[in-house]
Amino acid sequence: MSLQLYDYAASANCYKVRLLLAQLRQSYERIPVDIFAGDTLTDEFHEINPARSTPVLAINGGSYLQESAAILVYLAEGTEFLAAAPLERARTIRWLIIEQTDVMPMIGGLRFRLQTGRLQPDDDEAVRRREGGEEVLALLNEHLAGRDFLVGANYSIADIAVYAYTHVAPEAGYDLSEYPAVASWLRRVESRPRFINDLAPYPANARPGQGVSVYG
Amino acid sequence: MSLQLYDYAASANCYKVRLLLAQLRQSYERIPVDIFAGDTLTDEFHEINPARSTPVLAINGGSYLQESAAILVYLAEGTEFLAAAPLERARTIRWLIIEQTDVMPMIGGLRFRLQTGRLQPDDDEAVRRREGGEEVLALLNEHLAGRDFLVGANYSIADIAVYAYTHVAPEAGYDLSEYPAVASWLRRVESRPRFINDLAPYPANARPGQGVSVYG
Repeated sequence: MSLQLYDYAASANCYKVRLLLAQLRQSYERIPVDIFAGDTLTDEFHEINPARSTPVLAINGGSYLQESAAILVYLAEGTEFLAAAPLERARTIRWLIIEQTDVMPMIGGLRFRLQTGRLQPDDDEAVRRREGGEEVLALLNEHLAGRDFLVGANYSIADIAVYAYTHVAPEAGYDLSEYPAVASWLRRVESRPRFINDLAPYPANARPGQGVSVYG
Repeated sequence: MSLQLYDYAASANCYKVRLLLAQLRQSYERIPVDIFAGDTLTDEFHEINPARSTPVLAINGGSYLQESAAILVYLAEGTEFLAAAPLERARTIRWLIIEQTDVMPMIGGLRFRLQTGRLQPDDDEAVRRREGGEEVLALLNEHLAGRDFLVGANYSIADIAVYAYTHVAPEAGYDLSEYPAVASWLRRVESRPRFINDLAPYPANARPGQGVSVYG
């Protein structure tokens, strides 16, 4: 299987996929996408992903797969990172959904906007996202109390997905000492074999007025 | 397998599950949850779903499964409604994600707020959701042009999930004649064997000031 990853180094959605690929010892070609240089706005990128988001996985040079959660499921199929039992599989999907509807837009969305100067901490929109992030951190903390990992007994793509934006929550102003079960779970994820963290900081062109307008 | 569905008749997230269960000819007990009477705010419901959302599937009286997309995956496993091939399975997950991150909050969220008097069409928040809904309708329309169904050649839980809030888009002010491939796909979904549509209108207590405050 030949894999190419259309990848933005500062996107935790992309980092999820890089982490799983490292833990699978799966080789791949990384194709950098500079979002704020306009790389996702081209006709060529439209052919790869009409939703113009990253990551995108190209499989054997012909098939494209979009959405980080779908890529994780595809790569983890048949491995220790995705359970075979139907109920555990479905619970994995549950956390992949919650990650994309709550963890990513609230925690990740707030961090992006604060770090790139799109919002100030007291702005209404920042407060709305901070409160949404606190809700999902409380949900995670309750779920992880007494559990090692999010689904069943084993580390899975659910943990990889939720880890990606949760581990940088302090950079958005969240105090993870208020969520001790989350904090200790983050350390467990980081102690897994072949764990990597190569999430890059936002580059200068991610600030409004520096690069192309993609996210306002 | 004994199934109970914690179910809100006016939620299209719940309707998805009812539609799949009907098409699977799977019997189940429906347990009505009156969201705006406070049924999801009780300690008892917290044990069933700490995120306090519907639907929730109870399996054999003991295991709870939350999130409509996860329930669809669980019920469809091994049936014609979820492909066995890894890439088609992953593409199904892709659409389940897009449904929950874009279709539901934009189209469904706008419809709910307009129909229950939480927003007026010209409010900033209504405009933001309308534009987000137009983007995802354009994405769907492009994808469905030349395709019968969302994933591969066959009707699947991807279609069920996206149908749920898309078919009521006109009630949120969207003109589906601008998205002809979406409109004809809706008719194809409706012509599938054992198709049902029992989505209920929002009851009087869903209006602010009438029932408990759940969604502002």
